[in-house]
Amino acid sequence: MNKIVRLNMSNKQIGISSNEEYKILGGRALTSRIIFDEVEPTCDPLGKFNKLVLAPGLLAGTAVSSAGRLSVGCKSPLTGGIKEANCGGVIGTALARNDVKAIIIEGLPNDDNCHVLEIDGENIKLAAHNELRHLGTYDTVARLYEIYGKDIAILCIGPAGERGMRAASIAATDPTGELKFAARGGVGAVMGSKGIKAVVVHDNRNRQIDYHSKNEFMEVARRINKELLSDPKTGVAYKKNGTAGIVLAVNAMGALPTKNFRYGSFEYAENLSGDVMHETITKRGGCGKTGIPCMAGCVIQCSNIYPDENGQKIVSTLQYETIALLGSNLGFDNLDSVAKLNRMCDDIGLDTIEMGATLGVAIEAGLAEFGDEKGCMKLLEEIRQDTVLGKVLGNGAEITGKVLGISRVPAAKGQGFPGYDPRALKGNGVLYATSPMGADHTAGNAFGSRNEVDPLGRDKQGELSNNLQKKMTTLDSLGFCIFARGPLFKDPSTMSSMINFLLGVNISANDVWDIGINTLKIEREFNLKAGISPAQDKLPEFCYVEPLPPTNSVFDLTPEEMSKAIL
Amino acid sequence: MNKIVRLNMSNKQIGISSNEEYKILGGRALTSRIIFDEVEPTCDPLGKFNKLVLAPGLLAGTAVSSAGRLSVGCKSPLTGGIKEANCGGVIGTALARNDVKAIIIEGLPNDDNCHVLEIDGENIKLAAHNELRHLGTYDTVARLYEIYGKDIAILCIGPAGERGMRAASIAATDPTGELKFAARGGVGAVMGSKGIKAVVVHDNRNRQIDYHSKNEFMEVARRINKELLSDPKTGVAYKKNGTAGIVLAVNAMGALPTKNFRYGSFEYAENLSGDVMHETITKRGGCGKTGIPCMAGCVIQCSNIYPDENGQKIVSTLQYETIALLGSNLGFDNLDSVAKLNRMCDDIGLDTIEMGATLGVAIEAGLAEFGDEKGCMKLLEEIRQDTVLGKVLGNGAEITGKVLGISRVPAAKGQGFPGYDPRALKGNGVLYATSPMGADHTAGNAFGSRNEVDPLGRDKQGELSNNLQKKMTTLDSLGFCIFARGPLFKDPSTMSSMINFLLGVNISANDVWDIGINTLKIEREFNLKAGISPAQDKLPEFCYVEPLPPTNSVFDLTPEEMSKAIL
Repeated sequence: MNKIVRLNMSNKQIGISSNEEYKILGGRALTSRIIFDEVEPTCDPLGKFNKLVLAPGLLAGTAVSSAGRLSVGCKSPLTGGIKEANCGGVIGTALARNDVKAIIIEGLPNDDNCHVLEIDGENIKLAAHNELRHLGTYDTVARLYEIYGKDIAILCIGPAGERGMRAASIAATDPTGELKFAARGGVGAVMGSKGIKAVVVHDNRNRQIDYHSKNEFMEVARRINKELLSDPKTGVAYKKNGTAGIVLAVNAMGALPTKNFRYGSFEYAENLSGDVMHETITKRGGCGKTGIPCMAGCVIQCSNIYPDENGQKIVSTLQYETIALLGSNLGFDNLDSVAKLNRMCDDIGLDTIEMGATLGVAIEAGLAEFGDEKGCMKLLEEIRQDTVLGKVLGNGAEITGKVLGISRVPAAKGQGFPGYDPRALKGNGVLYATSPMGADHTAGNAFGSRNEVDPLGRDKQGELSNNLQKKMTTLDSLGFCIFARGPLFKDPSTMSSMINFLLGVNISANDVWDIGINTLKIEREFNLKAGISPAQDKLPEFCYVEPLPPTNSVFDLTPEEMSKAIL
Repeated sequence: MNKIVRLNMSNKQIGISSNEEYKILGGRALTSRIIFDEVEPTCDPLGKFNKLVLAPGLLAGTAVSSAGRLSVGCKSPLTGGIKEANCGGVIGTALARNDVKAIIIEGLPNDDNCHVLEIDGENIKLAAHNELRHLGTYDTVARLYEIYGKDIAILCIGPAGERGMRAASIAATDPTGELKFAARGGVGAVMGSKGIKAVVVHDNRNRQIDYHSKNEFMEVARRINKELLSDPKTGVAYKKNGTAGIVLAVNAMGALPTKNFRYGSFEYAENLSGDVMHETITKRGGCGKTGIPCMAGCVIQCSNIYPDENGQKIVSTLQYETIALLGSNLGFDNLDSVAKLNRMCDDIGLDTIEMGATLGVAIEAGLAEFGDEKGCMKLLEEIRQDTVLGKVLGNGAEITGKVLGISRVPAAKGQGFPGYDPRALKGNGVLYATSPMGADHTAGNAFGSRNEVDPLGRDKQGELSNNLQKKMTTLDSLGFCIFARGPLFKDPSTMSSMINFLLGVNISANDVWDIGINTLKIEREFNLKAGISPAQDKLPEFCYVEPLPPTNSVFDLTPEEMSKAIL
């Protein structure tokens, strides 16, 4: 993977270059480095000086399981800081096979055309496809398959992204054409500001990636894949219940977002559990299915298709964060409602986490009731129709709270909380407040460490988050899904070996963590230059003063305790 | 003036204390000092930890002209930083005569009653007056005069403030019951968050303030008053044309905000000029009048009543900033339209500057046309009716721009630009970017220095703003109107003498500037702790890249050049 494709939307020029300095950087390490190197930190995130950078993980396209994720980087219109959001699907691998290390989209178009960037080996083209304007992601993908054939990986936005809404996500196709999302931080709005509706990458299986030492690489990869398969979690549990498997555990901790973060547990949590989800999918049959890989070659296979009572697909994939934010947080006692709202968000191109937080605030303001499926669907429809209310909601929880006059807004650094109330999982409170990414569980979720560090205590939360942020940033850079972390964290030399065997370099196991550490450092430096000072490393006021039932915990870490999270 | 009245809205307790440390502090120096001493910088501006502080200028109630202004301080919900907005009217003097040095309103009420705080010497009471709920400021004032009699000074908010809208102002009555405004920074929303609809102060003329050396004070005061009267500007020009006198000069510089800051001059500027205003008021007669003092004893008398064709009052006072923002900035070619929009803003309790900037953005988004009186009135009516669109607009230009997807938003640190395009009056660009107050001309307007420092050049702008910010902060602290600056700046010992003769202290002329310098320093420190870092000392992107006709100037000062403004 060597090519850096640069598309300037101001003059529609496409250039190709390479940069030896970026050799061992991929995924988040590369998107953040390019943003750091090229983007003025105080620029308008939706203006001509911001850039959208797409970079497959460093190990994307290789034979190791779960490493094909694509990182999307930019200055975020939601947080005002640097952002990386990554997704599964086939585009990471497809870009790697096309020898593309990164795509940099810069400038602003002078026209209002709806553009598709097409990549097919050396053949890289930009074309106007105005028939795609304001199409939902489902229709967009269907239409692109018609135009370009089925052997493509697609990245696209829905109407929310085209309209520059700050809750807009970017959709990516998986091996069966279902959608995965680089959801957070308003990355879809930045893609929309560039006039890019979709990126289409021809996935030519004849183009295999080059390994420096293929056999040696394969040996490590096989070992990791085998370990993942033999672990009860990654080999069995995730196939069955996916990420929804943790609903009851989070509920038991009292950290499940419930009714706009008023409560930490939900009386109907059982109905939203992984077991119930699996049972429902199995019982209903039809196109319902669990144990689907979102990336080719992934052995974990945590994806699913959730069907309605007639076996027709509602959405793929129903996941924990969505169940927490669009489910318990909105007072829904059943997965069907969650799945329907999930589908609408996906189709409009909206982050389900941000929208769950936003709808919670809207309900708090009286615009719907908790558990009111029609009311919530009507609010999402306002976004699709681009009404004034829709424009408010589509810009996320914080702006919605300001406009509607609501003070309990679950957001840090402008971004809505994911599915863990920080008062009952304080390591995540530290994460939301200190991560350069704002409130984002993927940047270092403390849930998995709940047995090592007391989630309700103040001890070691900063140190825990420091360690998790470092490790996750490295995974994000190599292209790994968090679920693959078992064998990788157990023996970090697996990661350095694969990098060495792939690229012919010679880095140590410690150097692998340095990828994460260095990335976090430049991300934080970018944010400081953007005006996000350490004084903003805080949670919203209600977290400090409103006890959260049933633990009645408040967030009480001092700035000094939190600062230990910062690398 | 010794009493500090503290009203805790959480328990409705009223306490009275004094603080020797605050002895030589008044107005802005005192509000900022109390905010700095008592308010957690990262708190929610509309939450229970913010405080609203009211403090008359240090010389309020004395015999010197133009020194009775009232400062309103808080953490601003618009800028996120510390804020002081001041107003003329009779309340500054009335509080001084009641021996009140400051009122601190803290906590949040547990009820949703509409409260009136009444001050009558030692008799200080809080009462619910729910019949005032959502009344416009005109009706509120009329009703309060009925209840409490005419010998009162009133401070009140309109429905915008009650609803916590970030563009909400606070109205104050003048000697004839007309309204003046502490308009900027959303101070009205903070007053609304505390559940305070109005403060009523009995203005008992038998209660005169105590002077340490009255005769000596009177001598200085008489000299200043005489100098003000003998100066052609303060003695004649302001009486005739008020602040509107500068319309044509700003237009000639190419700095007059025109059509959402697209242009710096306006083809119909002549129609909006001070001379035309004066002519219209004189010709129409009826209740139309110029040369009215807004504070008792002011010899400058720049206020006016602008009547309609039948001589009925439209608004009092039509001023430059309103004419620029609600006039040329919205493409209006006549003062009648400006006066009508001005009246609506005043009645709803909205800052006319912020609303002019906001409506410009709304027009840019297609919600009305430039010069469309009915369209603009309809948008203001949306705010009064509290519709979703109204909630957006009532929160000011920056939120409106984000929701409506407009990038040319004339605002710095969250606050709308006043009537001087910073590209053609660069000293004000420095001011908007570096002042702890955000974009606020009253913090150190460079317009008056246009013959000393080239408004289009980069030279000396930082130094100029530094000097102006220091001087204005001192004036704001003593309670002086900027128009009184002539004799005070010429001989600063006039100010120290008056302070010494009033309080029996012994400060030097230089110490007077220290009041301003120290205040600016703690304001900036508060903002740093609130998370507003120096990287945020910037103007919006369009100011740097969009040349402003007719000078085709862009704002091009470097951060280093701007940093010279910082004390």
